[in-house]
Amino acid sequence: MQKRRLAITAMGLLCAAPALHADEGMWTYDNFPSDAVRRQYGVNIDQPWLDRVRAATVRLSGCSASFVSGEGLILTNHHCIASCLADNSTKEKSLLDEGFVARTREQEIKCSTQVADVLVEMQNVSAAVEAATRGLDDRAANEARKRTLTELEQGCEKSSGLKCQGVTLYNGGQYFLYKYRRYTDVRLVFAPEAGIAAFGGDPDNFQFPRWCLDMGLLRAYENGKPVTVANPLKINFAGPKAGEFVLVSGHPGSTNRLLTVSQLQQLREVSLPPSLLRSNELRGRYIQFAKTSDAARRISEDPLTGLENGIKVRRKQLDALLDENLMSEKRRQEAELRARTARDRSLSSLGDPWADIEKANAIARNLDTEYGYLEGGAGFNSRLFRYARSLVRGVAERDKPNAERLREYTDQSLPRLRQQLAAPAPVYPELERLTLSFSLERMREWLGPDDPTVRSLLAKDSPDSLSTALVDGSTLGDPKARLALWDGGAAAIAASNDPMIKLALQVDARSRALRKRYEDEVEAPTAVAEEKIARARFKLYGTAVYPDATFTLRLNYGTVQGWVEKGSPIEPFTTLGRAYERATGQAPFRIPDSWMQARSKLDMATPFNLSSNNDIVGGNSGSAMLNARGEVVGLMFDGNIHSISGAYWFDTVKNRSIAVHPAIMREALAKVYGADHLLGELSGR
Amino acid sequence: MQKRRLAITAMGLLCAAPALHADEGMWTYDNFPSDAVRRQYGVNIDQPWLDRVRAATVRLSGCSASFVSGEGLILTNHHCIASCLADNSTKEKSLLDEGFVARTREQEIKCSTQVADVLVEMQNVSAAVEAATRGLDDRAANEARKRTLTELEQGCEKSSGLKCQGVTLYNGGQYFLYKYRRYTDVRLVFAPEAGIAAFGGDPDNFQFPRWCLDMGLLRAYENGKPVTVANPLKINFAGPKAGEFVLVSGHPGSTNRLLTVSQLQQLREVSLPPSLLRSNELRGRYIQFAKTSDAARRISEDPLTGLENGIKVRRKQLDALLDENLMSEKRRQEAELRARTARDRSLSSLGDPWADIEKANAIARNLDTEYGYLEGGAGFNSRLFRYARSLVRGVAERDKPNAERLREYTDQSLPRLRQQLAAPAPVYPELERLTLSFSLERMREWLGPDDPTVRSLLAKDSPDSLSTALVDGSTLGDPKARLALWDGGAAAIAASNDPMIKLALQVDARSRALRKRYEDEVEAPTAVAEEKIARARFKLYGTAVYPDATFTLRLNYGTVQGWVEKGSPIEPFTTLGRAYERATGQAPFRIPDSWMQARSKLDMATPFNLSSNNDIVGGNSGSAMLNARGEVVGLMFDGNIHSISGAYWFDTVKNRSIAVHPAIMREALAKVYGADHLLGELSGR
Repeated sequence: MQKRRLAITAMGLLCAAPALHADEGMWTYDNFPSDAVRRQYGVNIDQPWLDRVRAATVRLSGCSASFVSGEGLILTNHHCIASCLADNSTKEKSLLDEGFVARTREQEIKCSTQVADVLVEMQNVSAAVEAATRGLDDRAANEARKRTLTELEQGCEKSSGLKCQGVTLYNGGQYFLYKYRRYTDVRLVFAPEAGIAAFGGDPDNFQFPRWCLDMGLLRAYENGKPVTVANPLKINFAGPKAGEFVLVSGHPGSTNRLLTVSQLQQLREVSLPPSLLRSNELRGRYIQFAKTSDAARRISEDPLTGLENGIKVRRKQLDALLDENLMSEKRRQEAELRARTARDRSLSSLGDPWADIEKANAIARNLDTEYGYLEGGAGFNSRLFRYARSLVRGVAERDKPNAERLREYTDQSLPRLRQQLAAPAPVYPELERLTLSFSLERMREWLGPDDPTVRSLLAKDSPDSLSTALVDGSTLGDPKARLALWDGGAAAIAASNDPMIKLALQVDARSRALRKRYEDEVEAPTAVAEEKIARARFKLYGTAVYPDATFTLRLNYGTVQGWVEKGSPIEPFTTLGRAYERATGQAPFRIPDSWMQARSKLDMATPFNLSSNNDIVGGNSGSAMLNARGEVVGLMFDGNIHSISGAYWFDTVKNRSIAVHPAIMREALAKVYGADHLLGELSGR
Repeated sequence: MQKRRLAITAMGLLCAAPALHADEGMWTYDNFPSDAVRRQYGVNIDQPWLDRVRAATVRLSGCSASFVSGEGLILTNHHCIASCLADNSTKEKSLLDEGFVARTREQEIKCSTQVADVLVEMQNVSAAVEAATRGLDDRAANEARKRTLTELEQGCEKSSGLKCQGVTLYNGGQYFLYKYRRYTDVRLVFAPEAGIAAFGGDPDNFQFPRWCLDMGLLRAYENGKPVTVANPLKINFAGPKAGEFVLVSGHPGSTNRLLTVSQLQQLREVSLPPSLLRSNELRGRYIQFAKTSDAARRISEDPLTGLENGIKVRRKQLDALLDENLMSEKRRQEAELRARTARDRSLSSLGDPWADIEKANAIARNLDTEYGYLEGGAGFNSRLFRYARSLVRGVAERDKPNAERLREYTDQSLPRLRQQLAAPAPVYPELERLTLSFSLERMREWLGPDDPTVRSLLAKDSPDSLSTALVDGSTLGDPKARLALWDGGAAAIAASNDPMIKLALQVDARSRALRKRYEDEVEAPTAVAEEKIARARFKLYGTAVYPDATFTLRLNYGTVQGWVEKGSPIEPFTTLGRAYERATGQAPFRIPDSWMQARSKLDMATPFNLSSNNDIVGGNSGSAMLNARGEVVGLMFDGNIHSISGAYWFDTVKNRSIAVHPAIMREALAKVYGADHLLGELSGR
């Protein structure tokens, strides 16, 4: 480790920027440190390389992916297509359990809510945003900023025909328009069984060594035909060597490395504990429900898996925030930045933005519970309710001028909203009752039985009886009913007798008022203060730092390597044979039948998963691991347990990412799934 | 508030002791501040008063109580007799749901695991303990201390025929032998329905205003006859007035007000979060299970209620520990004590016990998870397993010399253990499978699938399949089977094919080794360091401070009063009428049928619950609230939400305790339950 840290010092970074380590960083494509990479690794990541890889990198809903064939084939993780698999399952037959192979194009199944975006252009609009907010007070500036971004997006979409998204980088240090080519017809091509895609299940999640074939294949269509991709990424099935230089191109979701100490404390003390407690109870309810029948197990598998992943992430985030080492380092960095800011006369107009954030946090502390249950939806955990709220609000908002609407209902968002309303995803009343009853019960606990909303809902009902009435009485599980309300507009909403629509209407005024207070009293002063801190940071450190992850395209680099755990080295590769030895025959350590049958044909020495020190977080799932030539040598799907603290800092010693090795993909497609047609397409044959 | 704080200052305490507030304090009966009370309230709490009240104060399993008739009638809370009600219920008929009134002595039902203790004498044995440990290193001192207390207990029991218990006060500042008269035949006399005893259920738990008839009546028997009580407490059904001086005599369970800052941090960061997460998941499992049938609801009601209470307590404790106001005050107090200790030459031999505790904490951090799952039993949450462990260990330990045994298997503990093994409490296989499968699944998550114990248990099993095999194969639900093993001794244990016995044997070596490490490396140095801090505190502050609660007899005082919540005053009394207005018809806000039928006969102005500023915590449940004459004017059953931080400090502004008013007891016994015979006995008629 020492050697690489010195290399960075030689680059003159350490003397200016806060302790930035080699191989750390989620770099935007316009600010990738190619010089540093060339100096350190002798690898040339030039503009053509960047353009080619960018054009083949895909963003899915919450995940990353890559084009890997000229005919629109998209490689991503199995867990990134889980909701498509669940949406195409029934109580009787689960594609998660059974896997899926399309033998022909005709067999490829529509993923009704999936979109695939490819970043085409990044436009810096910081000047326009700054001009629009200059001289305004916090609230006015907050609104002007949102309005300006909405208007820029709208203008961009009109003129370019692309999907345009306002992007905030460096917590307000830069504003960009990111322009995407969006594909809305995305189909399912291949998925292994969850039993091998997530072998080891929740116990092994965020662990390594590991044996997960966490892969899936989609295909993008346009006008009913597969999309033609000029320069797809090529898979190098040999994979990388230990120590090899590798890059990851994808969309890390969210990090909080630039937060102030008081913001971290707020997460530790106000946000994370209640959300974890709630999620753990819901986990218990799902698990107990799943035991009642096979059908119950099947329909709760997808939400339970997602929930358990979220629990593990937030639990380890809380651990990180409770670790005095991290907090004292954060305090030190902040004290240094504050001291340097105070000494710099050109920054004297900034005032004390750290104190401003503390003030906003104090207000958030008082609003948080109410906001979370009513506006955040923690009190109404139900797909039907979410449809109802989208309909009630969307219909009301779309009649307003575009720039005055709630952000999620601008013209740029409405096509996606309509796609979701129209999607024929199954809604299971048993699960709806479970989640809604649970959330109403917790809302009563946390807001108290005498809260006006709680009192009005539960004056003569229990959470169970109310949920049953709402779920059984609602027709919003039917896409036709949803579209009828959407297309019928305000009159249809007003005339509706659907109890979920009525509930959404009933709680709307209070929820909106809470949101307005939150935006004005918490979000606005925080955004202004963060902008000021970003200005100070830019002035003092320049762009030698990278922005926090915001689910926008990033590129990072590192090497294939393990780490040392409690004194023992963890090797960076696993092989197939050990998976069979580790199997217990019982989920989640049960190897699927297809693999048991193919066992004798398989090469037990095939590399399975590998680890590297690339700096990735959730959202990077499905990203390609690339070698210096830009070939796919791995498929990122997880990090080790230490990677979770990556939300707040990059631990060079222990933070490792985990990928599927391409050799096991080939072995599986060829010998387990008999999918030579896909292997041929992936191999460019 | 200001006035009372000044009164304390006049007593010369504030200048020496750390910010001790008026009405704060859980005083031992040998150190009650009668002078302060006389000066402040003009009330004379003299030795005869103390002796009389002490002799009528009763300790139950985990609760407090009082003798309230000459014929052994014991007044306590409904929630203190819940396990007796559950033990005497079946899947079909729940005494918790339905309540119970014994119309004759013959109808009184045995509570098979309940004992009732009355404190007869307190003997200071500090000198003997100090002599036994002088000059020894930490581990040896820890063992010598335990051995000495065991020997003292044994000698005391032999010579006195009483139940003798070694008691550590002031975290090692004093050692006592507390001598109890123990009654092992305790019977159920009266319980209202849980619907009114815990009206408002978990949502209203730790809230006020409140409407709970949280009362129950037991009777102590000896030789098959009711015990004769010379001086029972008299109930004053008029209750107290607002502002009246009141005392509470009972057994507060546990407080942590004398812990060091690093110990509080350990609770905040290491102990509380995982236990809360676990409990919340179990809560979800119970709730979902309870929905599957009426029988399921009935059998899970008692464990769920206890679990939810524990969740609320620990959740608010965590909030308190995350509150910087509390922690900075604790830091200030500790810094002052450390500085004064360092300045006092007579204390120079103490070294730095605060640093010693930090070192022990660091070790505990590494051991905690493993210890909790294996030795703490978090991995084997099952009554059958607890029976099995008691049998396996008890049989092995009782063959050793008394002073060398694990503390829970000394001669003094064996009669109670045998009583528990013999008790015919129902064991429900459905619940056993639920809790055991849950705990095995969490053990696998937290220790990892590759932990040797996890691996050996789950090599070919899932938590569900293993739990089913263990529970269905075990006969330990039958008291006869348990007693056969107990009486059969080591040979019977070795020959047993019971899978729970085998499991307890299988994990015993590792569990005991962990316990030994924990005792030697964490407990021993901590105990020695705590003793040193206690010595410093005594030297500097004397006994003007009170010891942390240890489930030993205490007396405290205060006045009947409400508090101010978010600017609005909370009145100290509630009345019956409002309970009917607040009812929703659905549990837990459903008023039982008996009360609906009696409604027209009841006086709606009857006082129901009341609040006071007495300093109580869990364990005080069932304690009598007494007026200056020693009459019962209330029955403590809860605190307000702010009282939970009482684990760490006493918040004079907001910490309030909550009691049942005697007037509602009379109204209910007379008009709802037609229990004039009991009312007569309580009135001394």
